[in-house]
Amino acid sequence: MRDYIDPIARLINEFSKLPSVGNKTAQRYALRILNMSDDQVANFVDAIIYAKKNVKFCQICGNFTDVDPCRICSTRDNSTICVVKEAKDVLAIEKLSTFAGVYHVLNGVLSPLDGIGPDQINLKSLLLRLGKGNVKEVILATNPDVEGEATAMYIARLVKPLGIKVTRLAQGVSIGSDLQYTDEVTLSRAIENRKEI
Amino acid sequence: MRDYIDPIARLINEFSKLPSVGNKTAQRYALRILNMSDDQVANFVDAIIYAKKNVKFCQICGNFTDVDPCRICSTRDNSTICVVKEAKDVLAIEKLSTFAGVYHVLNGVLSPLDGIGPDQINLKSLLLRLGKGNVKEVILATNPDVEGEATAMYIARLVKPLGIKVTRLAQGVSIGSDLQYTDEVTLSRAIENRKEI
Repeated sequence: MRDYIDPIARLINEFSKLPSVGNKTAQRYALRILNMSDDQVANFVDAIIYAKKNVKFCQICGNFTDVDPCRICSTRDNSTICVVKEAKDVLAIEKLSTFAGVYHVLNGVLSPLDGIGPDQINLKSLLLRLGKGNVKEVILATNPDVEGEATAMYIARLVKPLGIKVTRLAQGVSIGSDLQYTDEVTLSRAIENRKEI
Repeated sequence: MRDYIDPIARLINEFSKLPSVGNKTAQRYALRILNMSDDQVANFVDAIIYAKKNVKFCQICGNFTDVDPCRICSTRDNSTICVVKEAKDVLAIEKLSTFAGVYHVLNGVLSPLDGIGPDQINLKSLLLRLGKGNVKEVILATNPDVEGEATAMYIARLVKPLGIKVTRLAQGVSIGSDLQYTDEVTLSRAIENRKEI
């Protein structure tokens, strides 16, 4: 026996498809599953099947939802659309309870090196939404990294000609941070974007 | 929407039961599952069910197996038993291809603080095996940490009176390591256990 028996090897292989899970971690997960009681495994499997069956993408915003259109799209002010990379970002902004508009989840960002162009992300549906006419502002809330910036710039170029206000999350020093440890790009961006008080 | 909808929350909760998986990681896993195709999810679920159904514990050694007794117990020299903490350790030793004996998987180590005593690990079955009379040596291959050491000492005290040779993995400096970076306990153990050449 130089390797795990087939059922275990297959399980390890499946677990290693999860993000950032290598062989060693997948192995730990597989062995934990085998050490669970039958009931625990049944719950685990049911949760996967139940989620996969009941969670859909909202046809309007692309966010995960169990009703279509989602609760946010059907109840909130849809004149302001906040464009984010993925569902997790919606949750991060929702936790603030300060944003009253709706979202648009791109489910990715432009990344030519990985073969992800405008057609691979949820972009066409954003333009369709904007075409309907009552949108006043698009907030580009993709991550402040290379791909997020490029995606924001790309979308801005498409949206501006429609006469819709396009904004981007402010970039500057983090609250509570220490200037001497702030990276150079952030610091120079903070100086560039300085605000009169 | 301050939190994930119920099917996602439930899935995150299940994933967070895997070892060392916190909320953020469980969230990433859950979202990956939701982004998988139906076929991929079916494969994932099938692998879990198949493994849980087909993998048993060998009645002799306690290792995972799909036939009982396992291939190692039924084909190899059973006069030498190598006692390990868990199934992963069997694999680590098997990879060497130098050990011709059989194993005994404790499925844990003594850890009084966690409420794990001799009855919580697979120890009684080891004594039953030894009682059958043809075992000549027991190699204690639990980890060289506090709990592994304590477990080895405990088992040694039970086995020695039976007149069976009890050995422990050699402890010393690792091959290829640098003395100046070797921890003190290991180094002093290496001096203590020095060998005439």
